[in-house]
Amino acid sequence: MGATENQPKKKLIEPRTLKGFRDFLPEMMIPRETLIERVKKVYRSYGFCPIDTPVLEYLDILMGKGSDETDKQLYKFKDSGGRDVGMRFDLTVPFARFSAQHLAEIGTPFKRYHLAKVWRGENTQAGRYREFMQCDFDTIGTTSVTSDIETALIINDILERINPTSTETFTKFKVHLNSRKILTGALVKIGLEEKATPILRALDKLAKIGVDAVVEEMKSAAGAAEEQAKLILEVASAKGSNEEILQRLEQLLQGNELGQQGVAELRQILEATKAAGVPEERFMLDVSIARGLDYYTGTIYETFLDELPQLGSVCSGGRYDNLAELYTKQTLPGVGASLGLDRLFAGLEELNMLPKLSTTVDVFIAFFDKSLTSQYFALAARLRNEGIGVELYPEPKKLGQQLKYADRKGMKIALVMGQDEVEKGVVTLKDLRSGNQQEVEFDNLVSAIRAL
Amino acid sequence: MGATENQPKKKLIEPRTLKGFRDFLPEMMIPRETLIERVKKVYRSYGFCPIDTPVLEYLDILMGKGSDETDKQLYKFKDSGGRDVGMRFDLTVPFARFSAQHLAEIGTPFKRYHLAKVWRGENTQAGRYREFMQCDFDTIGTTSVTSDIETALIINDILERINPTSTETFTKFKVHLNSRKILTGALVKIGLEEKATPILRALDKLAKIGVDAVVEEMKSAAGAAEEQAKLILEVASAKGSNEEILQRLEQLLQGNELGQQGVAELRQILEATKAAGVPEERFMLDVSIARGLDYYTGTIYETFLDELPQLGSVCSGGRYDNLAELYTKQTLPGVGASLGLDRLFAGLEELNMLPKLSTTVDVFIAFFDKSLTSQYFALAARLRNEGIGVELYPEPKKLGQQLKYADRKGMKIALVMGQDEVEKGVVTLKDLRSGNQQEVEFDNLVSAIRAL
Repeated sequence: MGATENQPKKKLIEPRTLKGFRDFLPEMMIPRETLIERVKKVYRSYGFCPIDTPVLEYLDILMGKGSDETDKQLYKFKDSGGRDVGMRFDLTVPFARFSAQHLAEIGTPFKRYHLAKVWRGENTQAGRYREFMQCDFDTIGTTSVTSDIETALIINDILERINPTSTETFTKFKVHLNSRKILTGALVKIGLEEKATPILRALDKLAKIGVDAVVEEMKSAAGAAEEQAKLILEVASAKGSNEEILQRLEQLLQGNELGQQGVAELRQILEATKAAGVPEERFMLDVSIARGLDYYTGTIYETFLDELPQLGSVCSGGRYDNLAELYTKQTLPGVGASLGLDRLFAGLEELNMLPKLSTTVDVFIAFFDKSLTSQYFALAARLRNEGIGVELYPEPKKLGQQLKYADRKGMKIALVMGQDEVEKGVVTLKDLRSGNQQEVEFDNLVSAIRAL
Repeated sequence: MGATENQPKKKLIEPRTLKGFRDFLPEMMIPRETLIERVKKVYRSYGFCPIDTPVLEYLDILMGKGSDETDKQLYKFKDSGGRDVGMRFDLTVPFARFSAQHLAEIGTPFKRYHLAKVWRGENTQAGRYREFMQCDFDTIGTTSVTSDIETALIINDILERINPTSTETFTKFKVHLNSRKILTGALVKIGLEEKATPILRALDKLAKIGVDAVVEEMKSAAGAAEEQAKLILEVASAKGSNEEILQRLEQLLQGNELGQQGVAELRQILEATKAAGVPEERFMLDVSIARGLDYYTGTIYETFLDELPQLGSVCSGGRYDNLAELYTKQTLPGVGASLGLDRLFAGLEELNMLPKLSTTVDVFIAFFDKSLTSQYFALAARLRNEGIGVELYPEPKKLGQQLKYADRKGMKIALVMGQDEVEKGVVTLKDLRSGNQQEVEFDNLVSAIRAL
């Protein structure tokens, strides 16, 4: 009512984000950038190379490649040229399309990483996001177990570096290893590989209905004999140390080449990762993982934080026989895994491992005297040249307010320089955590800052 | 015709990308990642913090904020929940929305950077892409020239680091500086600020139609007197050294506060950047730049590569009075700029400054003997622990083929280790560029590699 006809009230648009989408403020984004950089560094140290693909793909590239579920969740539309397009829902389908399209240029073996956002119109009730980040790495064009070993090592190397506030090795996690060849080998051994679906369905009920009922279901639904059902159950529930599990599986799968191969590969992964210096307890054979994922055909990886098993796997992957069969006749076997960055961050938050920092620098320069503007910039440049990040406050506000600003953001050191200090050739250096302050000569400033 | 009824021929989907969209292969992506990291590092060294926003926004947030042109180019659709949504076409609108939405949390001054893709359904004929990367940084919540100075320094620091193959300072560029306050001040001084549009339109024809015709048009279209038109022309064509231009403008704008302020700010930018150690010739006053962009109200920045003036500005920006007026009543003045990464890379390619590398490591380990798998991993781990990236070939292929693979990708050193070498405690180290090779003891390997 206060607005007159001459000054029509401007109607503001409500600033808001879509359901399932998030803004990242500095406090969240700074540790994300730290981890993304570390992950890339690990990938690179093994010779993996970055690629990128468009967010939008032709719809026929994306449709029918995932499950009905992902088809339904696709963000799809007609672009202004009338093309049916969609936003990628993972990085695997674009990589398959990419590999088929550029195979002659990239050659094999080809090791790529791709860190990028993907979109799924998921139900957001379960705290799920519709936009999230995937960090994939894959080796394609080889069936050698060497690449399976490397995949295990990379998962370990990444997880060792997930503490954003520390460069010390993080150790509270385990990489669970399995191979699809084991259960498939057992099914082949008993001659029931055609009945895999009803048998696995029965097996999945083990915790709920118990051994006897599972055996009964395998008999009735898959026509398995008592002995056959029991073999499957014994394979699927092998427990003990890694060595005990290996020996038990070798015994159970005797005479079956595929199963023995799966066991031998797991053994090689354990041996080589040990030779590479990874503590043995980091890897754990676990024949129960990822039974349902039928695109994997060999080694399978899942990774759990010791303190948050209910969080689920934060880094999963496996070996597959053929990546890009929808787009090329060339067979492209491979192995890879993906770090679920958003899930990992949910875990780090729960574990109070995220820093409360809204700054990218440790050192703050108070703006005290307008006539010293050039001197402030000279001082800041001097520190930056030494690799010390510096934030200069832009205005001559009250010193107390400036220091409060620096402290709230998480900066550690404030430098104060007025006309007096300039004349004396010193800077007042204030430790924002302890409150202590001292006058430091210009020439000793870098070492004084480093000492704090 | 070869397919029988029992084996229906599988129809392949043609692997392809949408018009105006690109895949990035390692050779292109590696230098992009290098530069992106360097740019972030510069932003961080000044205390700028990363943020991120969703790719999709409510359509009303995006519409009507840019020009009619950007509205037309928007990728927009209805999501499966019936919401009208669009893909961001720049990072400024999302930042405006973000600032309004989170103002209480972020506080001011607020310094953010945002490196992310944006989408515009542009005409692709001119070699333009529909998906491209922007690298924005802005300081909001202050009108102080300190932030204008910082913006100039950051642009300089980024450009000094654009050579992907070298850490040496790149110097062949110039940052052009202007201030909207100068021309606006001149218009105010002659009392014709209401006639800015026809006057600027006439001015834009200067190169085409010459001084006399421009003066005539200013007279007829904007009602300017001869003297008034000449003042505008003199201001707009001030030339010479930075100091000469400053003095000329001070004289021409005498008695006009806004214009004098613009000149004084440019003078401060030149002084402070000099104090910060930037060579004076890096900054060039240029009253001709960005005359048409009416969202800028103060300092304006454009950056040109000396050898490619026709490429246009690779890093542009300026000061504005109010960022987020569509979303909040709070006035948010600010200043910032954006590196046009895709245009910059087009320039680097033209200047042959892009490396021909498809690897992220220098050292290659040939896979010679399957029984040595664990030893290869131990060797690789040892080098990685020293910070040396290593690629291990996954299979025991012919050595010549393996070395060709390593050389083609751009690796520099190959390590060969067979049973003989293991027994002797040595590795054969081959310089892939010279072809020279030598046996190196295990303990001396790191230093031998570093020496190459």
